[in-house]
Amino acid sequence: MRPPSVKYKYTHYSILIFPCMMREEEDNVVREEGEEGEAALERAFDETEVPPWQKQITVRAMVTSLILSVVFNVIVCKLNLSTGVIPSLNVAAGLLGYAAVKAWTVLIEKCGLLKQPFTRQENTVIQTCVVASSGIAFSSGTASYLLGMSPLTASQAETGNTPMNVKALSLGWITAFLFLVSFVGLFSIVPLRRLMILKYKLTYPSGTATAYLINSFHTPKGAKLAKKQVWVLFKSFVGSFTWAFFQWFFTAADNCGFSSFPTFGLKAFSQRFYFDFSATYVGVGMICPYMVNVSLLIGAIISWGIMWPAIESKKGVWYSADLAPSSLHGIQGYRVFLAIATILGDGLFQVVYMVILTLKSFIQQHLHKNGNEGEEEEGAVVDYNESKRSEYFLKDQIPNTVAIGGYIVLALISTFVVPQIFPQLKWYQILVAYIIAPVLAFCNAYGCGLSDWSLASNYGKIAILVFSSWVGLEKGGVLAGLASCGVMMSIVSTASDLMQDFKTGYLTLSSPRSMFVSQACGTAMGCVVSPLVFWFFYKAYSVGEPDGSYPAPYALMYRGIALLGVEGFSSLPNKCLLLAVICFSASVLINLLIVVLNKYETKYRIYRFIPSPMCMAIPFYLGGYFAIDMCIGSALLLVWQWSNKKQAEELSPAVASGLICGDSLWGVPAAILTLAGLTPPICMKFLSASANNRVDAMIAV
Amino acid sequence: MRPPSVKYKYTHYSILIFPCMMREEEDNVVREEGEEGEAALERAFDETEVPPWQKQITVRAMVTSLILSVVFNVIVCKLNLSTGVIPSLNVAAGLLGYAAVKAWTVLIEKCGLLKQPFTRQENTVIQTCVVASSGIAFSSGTASYLLGMSPLTASQAETGNTPMNVKALSLGWITAFLFLVSFVGLFSIVPLRRLMILKYKLTYPSGTATAYLINSFHTPKGAKLAKKQVWVLFKSFVGSFTWAFFQWFFTAADNCGFSSFPTFGLKAFSQRFYFDFSATYVGVGMICPYMVNVSLLIGAIISWGIMWPAIESKKGVWYSADLAPSSLHGIQGYRVFLAIATILGDGLFQVVYMVILTLKSFIQQHLHKNGNEGEEEEGAVVDYNESKRSEYFLKDQIPNTVAIGGYIVLALISTFVVPQIFPQLKWYQILVAYIIAPVLAFCNAYGCGLSDWSLASNYGKIAILVFSSWVGLEKGGVLAGLASCGVMMSIVSTASDLMQDFKTGYLTLSSPRSMFVSQACGTAMGCVVSPLVFWFFYKAYSVGEPDGSYPAPYALMYRGIALLGVEGFSSLPNKCLLLAVICFSASVLINLLIVVLNKYETKYRIYRFIPSPMCMAIPFYLGGYFAIDMCIGSALLLVWQWSNKKQAEELSPAVASGLICGDSLWGVPAAILTLAGLTPPICMKFLSASANNRVDAMIAV
Repeated sequence: MRPPSVKYKYTHYSILIFPCMMREEEDNVVREEGEEGEAALERAFDETEVPPWQKQITVRAMVTSLILSVVFNVIVCKLNLSTGVIPSLNVAAGLLGYAAVKAWTVLIEKCGLLKQPFTRQENTVIQTCVVASSGIAFSSGTASYLLGMSPLTASQAETGNTPMNVKALSLGWITAFLFLVSFVGLFSIVPLRRLMILKYKLTYPSGTATAYLINSFHTPKGAKLAKKQVWVLFKSFVGSFTWAFFQWFFTAADNCGFSSFPTFGLKAFSQRFYFDFSATYVGVGMICPYMVNVSLLIGAIISWGIMWPAIESKKGVWYSADLAPSSLHGIQGYRVFLAIATILGDGLFQVVYMVILTLKSFIQQHLHKNGNEGEEEEGAVVDYNESKRSEYFLKDQIPNTVAIGGYIVLALISTFVVPQIFPQLKWYQILVAYIIAPVLAFCNAYGCGLSDWSLASNYGKIAILVFSSWVGLEKGGVLAGLASCGVMMSIVSTASDLMQDFKTGYLTLSSPRSMFVSQACGTAMGCVVSPLVFWFFYKAYSVGEPDGSYPAPYALMYRGIALLGVEGFSSLPNKCLLLAVICFSASVLINLLIVVLNKYETKYRIYRFIPSPMCMAIPFYLGGYFAIDMCIGSALLLVWQWSNKKQAEELSPAVASGLICGDSLWGVPAAILTLAGLTPPICMKFLSASANNRVDAMIAV
Repeated sequence: MRPPSVKYKYTHYSILIFPCMMREEEDNVVREEGEEGEAALERAFDETEVPPWQKQITVRAMVTSLILSVVFNVIVCKLNLSTGVIPSLNVAAGLLGYAAVKAWTVLIEKCGLLKQPFTRQENTVIQTCVVASSGIAFSSGTASYLLGMSPLTASQAETGNTPMNVKALSLGWITAFLFLVSFVGLFSIVPLRRLMILKYKLTYPSGTATAYLINSFHTPKGAKLAKKQVWVLFKSFVGSFTWAFFQWFFTAADNCGFSSFPTFGLKAFSQRFYFDFSATYVGVGMICPYMVNVSLLIGAIISWGIMWPAIESKKGVWYSADLAPSSLHGIQGYRVFLAIATILGDGLFQVVYMVILTLKSFIQQHLHKNGNEGEEEEGAVVDYNESKRSEYFLKDQIPNTVAIGGYIVLALISTFVVPQIFPQLKWYQILVAYIIAPVLAFCNAYGCGLSDWSLASNYGKIAILVFSSWVGLEKGGVLAGLASCGVMMSIVSTASDLMQDFKTGYLTLSSPRSMFVSQACGTAMGCVVSPLVFWFFYKAYSVGEPDGSYPAPYALMYRGIALLGVEGFSSLPNKCLLLAVICFSASVLINLLIVVLNKYETKYRIYRFIPSPMCMAIPFYLGGYFAIDMCIGSALLLVWQWSNKKQAEELSPAVASGLICGDSLWGVPAAILTLAGLTPPICMKFLSASANNRVDAMIAV
């Protein structure tokens, strides 16, 4: 079996950022499945006993999961608040989970106290739990719809800044809301798992890849590689953490330190083109496909290099020159709404395309089924791997009554309690959401099984548009829209996650029941940990400040979508509508081009070189600095691959994970220092030669 | 034959800095000589014709030499002016010379125009010429005795700042002076070459190593390695040059940029402990032995970490608090005179030790000779290598009449022309110098042959003491002392250089005549290029400013020695004499300890771990920043050796040379930019948190 050297990612993040990644993944994993050794895989594990499902969920697994869950919540939260670009941390989670339990079991074994060996089923439980929990950090929307409700974000948008449309954040109601909406999704499509895994044999590339990773860890060769990877991850973690620590000393105030380094000169810096020495985004760049990074850079050049300077030259003509720099009626408005237009264009295209694809594949499945009824189900169970996997998959069942009953009970509770938190949303509106949701959840889980591409946040954005215009501005439509986004996103994203996990469980002979319980535990952890971590950052820094360290770009964008929903296009500044339509159309056309080329131009596979509109839109608001970090990550990877391809493939995900983890985890002590009121001693400042002369003159006095 | 992976260096630099290095070198080279393949070496070259001596000195060799001579003069000058620490650039010179001519011949050969193949004799000629020329950059004293005459240095010392003891620098008289004193040395000990090379079979480790390097280049395997080394050198050159270029943009004013980076905090920075991001000194650190770098660091910690803060706490008690910071009567005086005491202690010990060693070996040689007269000379020519080498070495002779006549004529010219430049020195004083000089030159050449350790600058320092006290303060003793240092140093250093080259020539079958001519050409180049390069830096920067980029530490120290000569100890600040005596004694004792341990404690070889007093003294004046650079170089090398020992040994000298060359050569465009009045656009400034608040408040106004 091949070692798991390719990149894996979480499904739900893909929606935000990695459309292009998915396609490559798919190719990769499908190829992998057909390779040497796969046929004999389960034979290699013949000697290994599979524990019953209750024994798969051990105390040590849950403790490890909780620790990793905190770690990854911190990382995801920090990334979410700084740019919203989140790479796959699956390799890091897998390696760290494996390393933690393995180290523990080896230690205990040496003391002669080991009662239960570390099995791949247990490993799968940890992976599932951690992924579920850090999934909440994303779907909880602390950096998007929830933060979009806050007074600070509202004040930037001006329109809609009424008491009805603003809600001050507090730890209490956020946690309560998350508990209400996050568990419903778990029950929504459980009854369909046999259909999707055994009958349709959906690929679920991420789930499959994770299963391969875990299976490989438990073969001798894989364990050796894993050890090497853990060591490399540790080294790069320490390096990255130390570097972040070192940087801290030079950031006595705003605009101090390495993150304000005008690498390409002060002029470029003012247009947000600089390398900010962030190990995190260099690591992110190493994990993301080249095309994602290039798309980000292209987007930054088009927007901050060409469009914004051109629009700013119309200052006083297209928009008033007296506006605050953060006002959505000024240049900031163009940035936000053109980004929204591009993202919506891409998102809507993907939803439509996925629906078509799903329907098509569905019809084909049914035609096929009608053709050879009965035979399919049995006839498929031909090879040893499959028969064994099916056996274990079917052993522990989750009764349909439990699933359906659970959904109805939880949905009803949610229907009547959510309006207590958001009086702007009426109970019948939530009920409508819960009636439509299972259909969307199924669509998403099915599409995700085909393409590894979860569209949860796109469904969420559509929900914002629908519900905010339904409620209307006066009755608090902005807030209602944002809240409904949370309801919708949670169900859709949890459902596809769970199905992904079932696939992983199927391939590692883990029981569906232990997967379900583990996912539930992870969700519960996420609902507690995620708001706490967010609250920590929220109190320590001015989160959402456009020029601060944590601009949380999606908060303003999600609120912008809600504003479009309640106000229509009247809230846009001059000419912005025209430009937004152009962006929207361009986004759709580029996607169409990719699909067409993918289908009909197979010789050179040119579609690989077309930038992704979704990626291009992110720097519209933020600027190019993190795109430059990520391109540097790409460049490093390229050089590494060029000098030692095998080593680069085996170790680069570990290095990248270490870079991301180390830098991000420095965020915790840094936030504690900030909360304690300790400021760094030195300011590394960058002054133009003339400003420097004035400063020197002043210091001399 | 072993590839030339060990470190080589120039003889005369060793005096200044690398006492410990020499010993390791010696071990190395002696070991190398006895190794496999050596016996067959000359057989491998049997097919290769040795061109007559006139053909060894080709036009292309001279052109290449001139170009490299400029390059290395720039590097040496820059190093001399910034810290005075100069590493071995032999590998760089060897590689670049070989690469240049090889590339040229390959090109010409492809065009079918090659008339004469590239031989190792020609290569030796280039190496000799470049070494001779860049040797002048050192012995010309542009950073030591000549700069010590300038008004700026004189104003720092206060005492002796009279018109008689100061001479404004000018390109004209410097060049004339160099031509007068540099050629005399060439003739001084030429007649003794047979005695020293053939009869005494002196080792001359640097010369031997250079010969091995050149021989290896002309074998197929060595050429392949050389190609790899050249490529690595080029890459590190480009990296280092680019880095220096990048740094430039951030140095809009003094105290701006990476060279003012308070890496360990502002407190440590004020005590000159910081990493200044200089690729040059990281490279230097990679070439220098670990113990040199550690000694520098220990010296920095003892002086700037302990002694100076302690002395500064006596400000107002031991010395007046109203003095200018650069006054030699204040803290600066302690720094300079304690450094001088330590260096003189070390230097005098070495001179005495070397005289004893020379006498001992000399007596042994004579006893031996008397025992078996006649047989020695013939009997030694036993193996093929030696017989062939002796044959070529004896083929072209330099008549003794020419040598002795040349010395007398040149010395007489010098005797009567030098007083025209320095009226403070009388003709009879110079005559005395020229009468003593050949004896010292022989001592030095003999000692250098044994230990690779040229003591030229120590003889120069003694000359300063002797002549300045002979002339006296009123008659311009300071200037006379410094000028006599030039006279003495030039003879002594050129003589040992030439003998070193004869050894190289002997081992590469090059004719002594071509060696002599090549050395003369190199000296002439040096006398023209070296003052020009110095002048370039002198005009572009405020050379000799204690806090500037080019503090030229030796200028003030050499002047300090001359002041001691004319004034005795009365010029020292309070308690400084006591401390100086302690430093002097400690320096002698440490050296004694090294010698004793080296002789009697052979089990653990503890002597290797005793720091060198000469190295420890350099940071007394400069501070620890470059010691930190160099230790980082050591650390990098250590990690490299740890991960791949063979690769590190083969390529680290090339990487280090590239780092040094790239960063140093950026000095040329940087100086041109400064001369053209172009200042960098940005200042990277480091402010304390409180200063930053004030600056921010000012900028906001």
